[in-house]
Amino acid sequence: MYLSILSCTNNSTFKPQFMEKHLVASHMAENMSGSEIIKLAWEINARISEGQHIYNLTIGDFNPNIFPIPQYLTDKIKEAYNNHQTNYPPGEGIPALRDAISHYLKRESEMQYSTNEILVAGGSRPLIYAIYKTLLDPKDTVLYPVPSWNNNHYAHLTGCKAIEIETLPENNFLPVLDDIKKYLSKVNLLALCSPLNPTGTCFSKKTLNAICKAVIKENEKRRIKGKKALYIMYDSIYWGLASKKAEHFDPVSLHPELRDYTISIHGISKVLAGTGVRVGWAWGPEKIIRKMKALLGHIGAWAPKAEQVATAQFLDNHDEVKSYLAWINKEVSYRLETFYDGFQALNDKGYQVDALRPQGAIYLTVLFDLIGRKTKSGKTLETIADVSTFLIDEAKVALVPFSAFGSKTKAPWYRLSVGTCTKEDVGKILDSLEAALASLR
Amino acid sequence: MYLSILSCTNNSTFKPQFMEKHLVASHMAENMSGSEIIKLAWEINARISEGQHIYNLTIGDFNPNIFPIPQYLTDKIKEAYNNHQTNYPPGEGIPALRDAISHYLKRESEMQYSTNEILVAGGSRPLIYAIYKTLLDPKDTVLYPVPSWNNNHYAHLTGCKAIEIETLPENNFLPVLDDIKKYLSKVNLLALCSPLNPTGTCFSKKTLNAICKAVIKENEKRRIKGKKALYIMYDSIYWGLASKKAEHFDPVSLHPELRDYTISIHGISKVLAGTGVRVGWAWGPEKIIRKMKALLGHIGAWAPKAEQVATAQFLDNHDEVKSYLAWINKEVSYRLETFYDGFQALNDKGYQVDALRPQGAIYLTVLFDLIGRKTKSGKTLETIADVSTFLIDEAKVALVPFSAFGSKTKAPWYRLSVGTCTKEDVGKILDSLEAALASLR
Repeated sequence: MYLSILSCTNNSTFKPQFMEKHLVASHMAENMSGSEIIKLAWEINARISEGQHIYNLTIGDFNPNIFPIPQYLTDKIKEAYNNHQTNYPPGEGIPALRDAISHYLKRESEMQYSTNEILVAGGSRPLIYAIYKTLLDPKDTVLYPVPSWNNNHYAHLTGCKAIEIETLPENNFLPVLDDIKKYLSKVNLLALCSPLNPTGTCFSKKTLNAICKAVIKENEKRRIKGKKALYIMYDSIYWGLASKKAEHFDPVSLHPELRDYTISIHGISKVLAGTGVRVGWAWGPEKIIRKMKALLGHIGAWAPKAEQVATAQFLDNHDEVKSYLAWINKEVSYRLETFYDGFQALNDKGYQVDALRPQGAIYLTVLFDLIGRKTKSGKTLETIADVSTFLIDEAKVALVPFSAFGSKTKAPWYRLSVGTCTKEDVGKILDSLEAALASLR
Repeated sequence: MYLSILSCTNNSTFKPQFMEKHLVASHMAENMSGSEIIKLAWEINARISEGQHIYNLTIGDFNPNIFPIPQYLTDKIKEAYNNHQTNYPPGEGIPALRDAISHYLKRESEMQYSTNEILVAGGSRPLIYAIYKTLLDPKDTVLYPVPSWNNNHYAHLTGCKAIEIETLPENNFLPVLDDIKKYLSKVNLLALCSPLNPTGTCFSKKTLNAICKAVIKENEKRRIKGKKALYIMYDSIYWGLASKKAEHFDPVSLHPELRDYTISIHGISKVLAGTGVRVGWAWGPEKIIRKMKALLGHIGAWAPKAEQVATAQFLDNHDEVKSYLAWINKEVSYRLETFYDGFQALNDKGYQVDALRPQGAIYLTVLFDLIGRKTKSGKTLETIADVSTFLIDEAKVALVPFSAFGSKTKAPWYRLSVGTCTKEDVGKILDSLEAALASLR
């Protein structure tokens, strides 16, 4: 009844080739690509729903039956709904939550931020988008390391220039000063992340320190000349999910002079396993925070109100925070460490695999150095895509290749996410990988 | 301890006037303004928290103690949290909700949309932003009537050109074909809204029909030439909140030929009084919806998952929908009609006030034609701002002037919002207005 005119027109002047130009989206939208990771995850889900058994370790999410959010947070959300916390939150977030975040930053990292330097949003993504849009004009340049999460997309959406720095496994795939120093004078935003998605590795104090000092020096020059500053976006959404050995550092806690230049990000999506609850926050210089607030107000990317009320209560309850973090870190670490040990054992057995020692987040960096090897059916693995397919078909394990995070490396490095697997799965997955590797010629 | 360098520098080469250029945001951000309505509402709230008694009828929101969301929706949100619905929703919204929306559109408006033509987001604002960004390049032009809600901001954020059409009280402040027809050939997006924020008036079938036919004709020309289409954004977030006399029409239900060119918007923010619950949706051509989904995925402006699960269950429960809509419409209509009658009575008494007959949404359009009048302290009311201040100071009533919605009219027209007042308040507010009016010379 309501057929599209695309299919029902039979006008003699109709030229199908014109329709593409007619029903055209904006240049930005026509050239936009969706998330490669989500696309991959849904391809895997399609195979699973067809009945295939696949260990889907692709997505940076949690199985909430294995990793539920804190019960206290759930209780407080329900209580907030009982108390009719259902109308508009203030654009910057409810005062109680910004207070709680301010206290949290002081308590956990000795950072002093007042509530007007803190912005709440519906997750951390809106804040990252707002940082790009608030700081960068099309003539400006962002520098980010690859592999890293979605910076390529944010650069496209902003229409700015991008410098991508390929990082090295020997540096835990984190950027070091030597990688970036020659570009700093040309750059307006340095997009950093630690613990790093996709690698599960963290900045050492020394490495971050060196970068911070260079940024301070660059900004001293620019300040005297009245030249646009070099800002740092410090995505620390995985802060709190770290091995005991890896400390977390923020540019501002290391160097208070960076306070005017640093916008940092955190939230409940990862450390409280609440990716679907949609509460994140940023802190930084008041002027930039105020601009980001105005932008996100127009976009309406606010955190739901009841969840804001509940998150404030959770963060203010030190015992609940402490006990949940202890629990989730134990669960995540067990999986990461067991996988790491398993990859070492496979390596010891002569299989061409490797892994980086896990330091944080829910990810393990693993290498399947299999290009050139032959499968049992005689097919030679020639590309990273061939290796990915082999792992899915033979080991029933789905991982995200670093190429999906912008990496140009030819070696088949992958992100292995542990948020959706049980403890029992770990051993099964390692066995399955070993059997697949053993089948190669 | 962590002082800003702004305040602690005493470098001899430091020039304060350079700091503004140094700590500069993007051109878009530096020139962005926040919502005038929210700014006004907070000014009023500041006066209230200082102890002043003011009837704050400025904000397009609800007092949730007077207008709670449906109890069934609350129950289902709590149930969804009990069932651990806390991980990432699919970027386009959970299938059950898109199914429920598809059925709802069919049931309520005879529109047939499949789930891949429906996009869920965290409220309707992200969808409006996505429509602008997905359809308009900086060289493109949007046409919208004024007064209207926030189109000026979306045009600024998109960097596109804008044609603003000043509408007339005799047309219920809705655009008619005569207002816009000469511009249609130059325009890429026509941003329409009905029931209209801020006026509380609705398109008649005849008026919308005429505009639709002109858009169809314009697109026939463009299609043949392979020229970029003229799209319609049809913001129907207040759909369902209408007086019995005012029917709701959507361009596509009137003219199925507009299917490829129309993106419509609805959600739970207004009709279920859930502004802080953050669930909205759009429907339109699959290609545009897919692009909007990719953009909003990167922005992360998703509706929280538990709220999606619950909204799906609510929409599928016809009895709950019917009974809640009957209740909220009765409550809203009582206030709007009583205010309207009160303004008529004041007019009959010779006061220079007027109001448009309410048709929908939670708004009444009122006129205080007081410019040139003198207050009891001898001050002449010379501007709309003077009239607003007089109303706040003397009547203790805060309203939003149409100038905050982009209107250039010199007459003091206002939006009166009833979402935060009790039934008992209505009479008190009318009495207070009459006393203030009587004090004028």
